[in-house]
Amino acid sequence: MEFLKKVLERIKPSEEENKKIKELANKIIDIIKKHSPNNVVDVLFLGSSARNTNLKGSYDIDIFILFDKSTSIDELENIGLELGKKAIEMLNGRYEINYASHPYVRGYIDNYKIDIVPCYKIDFGEKIISAVDRTPLHHKFLINKLNENLCDEVRLLKAFLKSLGLYGSDVKTKGFSGYLCELLIIYYGSFLNLLKDAKNWKKKKVIILDDIYEMYGNVKLPEFNEPLVVYDPVDINRNVAAALSLENYCKFIFYSNQFLENPSEEFFNNYIKKVEENLNNREKGKEIILKIVREKLSDDIIYPQLEKLTKAINKIIENHEFRILRSKCWLDDEFCYIYWEFLVYELPNVKLREGPDIFKKERVKKFVNKYDKIFIKNCKVYAFTERKYKNIEELLNDIINKKIPLPKIKNIDISKGYIYGIK
Amino acid sequence: MEFLKKVLERIKPSEEENKKIKELANKIIDIIKKHSPNNVVDVLFLGSSARNTNLKGSYDIDIFILFDKSTSIDELENIGLELGKKAIEMLNGRYEINYASHPYVRGYIDNYKIDIVPCYKIDFGEKIISAVDRTPLHHKFLINKLNENLCDEVRLLKAFLKSLGLYGSDVKTKGFSGYLCELLIIYYGSFLNLLKDAKNWKKKKVIILDDIYEMYGNVKLPEFNEPLVVYDPVDINRNVAAALSLENYCKFIFYSNQFLENPSEEFFNNYIKKVEENLNNREKGKEIILKIVREKLSDDIIYPQLEKLTKAINKIIENHEFRILRSKCWLDDEFCYIYWEFLVYELPNVKLREGPDIFKKERVKKFVNKYDKIFIKNCKVYAFTERKYKNIEELLNDIINKKIPLPKIKNIDISKGYIYGIK
Repeated sequence: MEFLKKVLERIKPSEEENKKIKELANKIIDIIKKHSPNNVVDVLFLGSSARNTNLKGSYDIDIFILFDKSTSIDELENIGLELGKKAIEMLNGRYEINYASHPYVRGYIDNYKIDIVPCYKIDFGEKIISAVDRTPLHHKFLINKLNENLCDEVRLLKAFLKSLGLYGSDVKTKGFSGYLCELLIIYYGSFLNLLKDAKNWKKKKVIILDDIYEMYGNVKLPEFNEPLVVYDPVDINRNVAAALSLENYCKFIFYSNQFLENPSEEFFNNYIKKVEENLNNREKGKEIILKIVREKLSDDIIYPQLEKLTKAINKIIENHEFRILRSKCWLDDEFCYIYWEFLVYELPNVKLREGPDIFKKERVKKFVNKYDKIFIKNCKVYAFTERKYKNIEELLNDIINKKIPLPKIKNIDISKGYIYGIK
Repeated sequence: MEFLKKVLERIKPSEEENKKIKELANKIIDIIKKHSPNNVVDVLFLGSSARNTNLKGSYDIDIFILFDKSTSIDELENIGLELGKKAIEMLNGRYEINYASHPYVRGYIDNYKIDIVPCYKIDFGEKIISAVDRTPLHHKFLINKLNENLCDEVRLLKAFLKSLGLYGSDVKTKGFSGYLCELLIIYYGSFLNLLKDAKNWKKKKVIILDDIYEMYGNVKLPEFNEPLVVYDPVDINRNVAAALSLENYCKFIFYSNQFLENPSEEFFNNYIKKVEENLNNREKGKEIILKIVREKLSDDIIYPQLEKLTKAINKIIENHEFRILRSKCWLDDEFCYIYWEFLVYELPNVKLREGPDIFKKERVKKFVNKYDKIFIKNCKVYAFTERKYKNIEELLNDIINKKIPLPKIKNIDISKGYIYGIK
């Protein structure tokens, strides 16, 4: 597959590009080190740009400030933020405070996005104190394993996944993290070897790096429920692929096979967008968009609730005998959106209600007392009743007006919703 | 339940009425006997009017000509028809030749319908030669068992079943024969006792009259698949309730219970028609009637084929994602009719096609090669395709035009059909 070289050329940052990143990272580190108190043990440039596994045009710099374990969490946070702010200010950038397991500084200088994250210095095998403490160990593990060639293979994998919408372990993407990509390439040796194996994966795939055995001996590994399990060499109680959804696991298997059947550069070039465009290039069923004014909380908090809301509404819709062809949800800064395409969105003013088995006398009695237009079919009692919702807008409006109970959804107020688009 | 007396008064023929029937029957018997050759062993007045279990206003007279077993079937038929014709002619009636297991004469004199049926004289336990040979034995068994009171109970049961559309063992009714009613009353002792037991019947009910044990000793009884099994005391290899459909068995249980919960004369007065009227007194989904020119064959032959056709078309309709609320079929002298009420009769020009599990590589390959607009959902491949039939008329017309294959249906030519009514 000669074209992979061409792809690599396109996605690999130039030496110039990487040099600039390194220079900026070093400047930041120098400033932080200069202003650090004694309990700061080290300041490190981590992440894919530090390891040479970054994609062209990604300007992310991760700087970790490693504190001695004796430092209190308050001190770590305060000093961490102070040092981060100072570094960005001195380089004339702007910054904001972001929150992961604890607050950290995100700075913007020119095109670069710099995360300056305080953490505890932990050794292999030691218990972590905050969730980000593993990152320096991940880095240490990876740089010992990666070489120039493997780094390029990681890039191919990342570009492939990105093009398929599977790159990223955030709550919206539910795909592959950068670290997962790096471990998979270390395990399989190359992008193509990974795909050749992946196309044969079954409902569950467990990957154990040799290093796990070397580092932990014959320890009993915990079981995980996720479809893909990759034990973290830094912490065997963690599945690096925990964020990958079953849906995306299946997509990866499917597209690995598709790619190997018909290898083409196309797969590295916004492939899923073209698939979507092709999918949408057809006559549609009735389409409706519900728009809900959103709270000022991060997507990570709201998106899972929006998914839960969508599922709950879909269930109500199906219970009322309308039929959904497709639904999806998304967010922007101001609104949550739920979109439906309907196969059936209008129904006559009659509903067939299935009652109990005619042999269940008590239940039959209740049913017969409740309904008037009764008949017997397939050994069951049925009733014709009037239909409450004869079209989908009526139903959605009563959901918005809270006349139909929904399960508890946090941080999204359905009554701030309205039917936005109907086609 | 005092009102049952009132019901009985209404449904029981007057003495005058029964006397006239008997007089006419005797006249016919006299004529036949007078003209009979030596191999005619007996001429009998049988059926419900002979046994005093007939309903008011039923003017049916069954006369059986019993031949000696040595008679050939040709001779039996020829002599049987000759004697039948002669009797009707001499009484100035008109007649036609009907066919059961063999031809017989049906005559009409005034309001009376007279069947004159030749058969072999068989004794209990002997093998029958033609299907109607059992009838004289049924009569013999019943008159030994019935008394005035039981005859009235039979009448109540018949009237109840008639009112519910469950009386008759023909292929359209699939209900209770007169003989079955008589045996049930003999077994249970009364109409109410039968209903009290019937309301508790489960998916299967087997009834064995004491006489069976008395007559056949400890013989092993055959098993039958029908929901209600009543062994014929005249022939234990025959289930008297074989014609009763599961649907009607369930209806009988349900309405027995309904009647006992709220006993009322209503149940004896065209009850099922009122149920139907009530069921239809509502807003409807789209209604369509398909009309097919029928062959000049008896209903008994065509009706089962029409039911088979209706089922086959319903399956095609559901496979094309339209949804039926109700369907039924019936016949008149010229046409077969199939009626549908639809919940969903129109669909958008897009079809969601469910493909294989993504793990089944060979099947996935075929699916992907066949369809263009592919996506992954719930570990399966799906495709959007164009819908061939966007409304029910298009589909029905292609069924009529034989563009959609149907299973083999005899004696009904679908291409002689047309869409008659649309509402």
